[in-house]
Amino acid sequence: MAKFGLSGKMMAQPGKRDELATLLLEATAAMKDVKDCQVYIVSVLPEEPDAIWITEVWSSAEAHQASLALDTTRAMIQRAKPLIAGFEQQIRHVPLGGIGVTP
Amino acid sequence: MAKFGLSGKMMAQPGKRDELATLLLEATAAMKDVKDCQVYIVSVLPEEPDAIWITEVWSSAEAHQASLALDTTRAMIQRAKPLIAGFEQQIRHVPLGGIGVTP
Repeated sequence: MAKFGLSGKMMAQPGKRDELATLLLEATAAMKDVKDCQVYIVSVLPEEPDAIWITEVWSSAEAHQASLALDTTRAMIQRAKPLIAGFEQQIRHVPLGGIGVTP
Repeated sequence: MAKFGLSGKMMAQPGKRDELATLLLEATAAMKDVKDCQVYIVSVLPEEPDAIWITEVWSSAEAHQASLALDTTRAMIQRAKPLIAGFEQQIRHVPLGGIGVTP
């Protein structure tokens, strides 16, 4: 089955980037045992003080979709919402392989 | 030390995407033991038949820079060059953590 990749920019409310990043890192820690989530990297962008760059790889688009319905995900989204100003550049891709993803 | 992330779009010459992707996957296989390279994911974009989306995470910007000087990297670049039309959207980011990168 084709993997599902999602990369994109999340804009925090002004001055809230670090708080939002901390929340996202907590969320990834809680997802460590979700084996369908192969990659979830939280990055900052040196030249954009309110932006977070997120890279996700899931074992399938269905697994990603299912994750959105999990109680833990929904709770996290509720906590993050007030800190998020918006999204930019959502890139859906199909990972073929490489380093950091399972075959 | 801060990690170094690079995400971006590589455009293949028309019709050469699959050949270029195969070459990049061979290159990542050869780099599997380079411990400073934590992530190197080769993806395709469903709506852009000549595009490849690459996600790299290195243990530091210096490690990424050093990798460019390796004989294996230089040989790969020489092989890939005729297949590459150009680059778009190079995003340099600083991975803070998450799933798929080492702390």
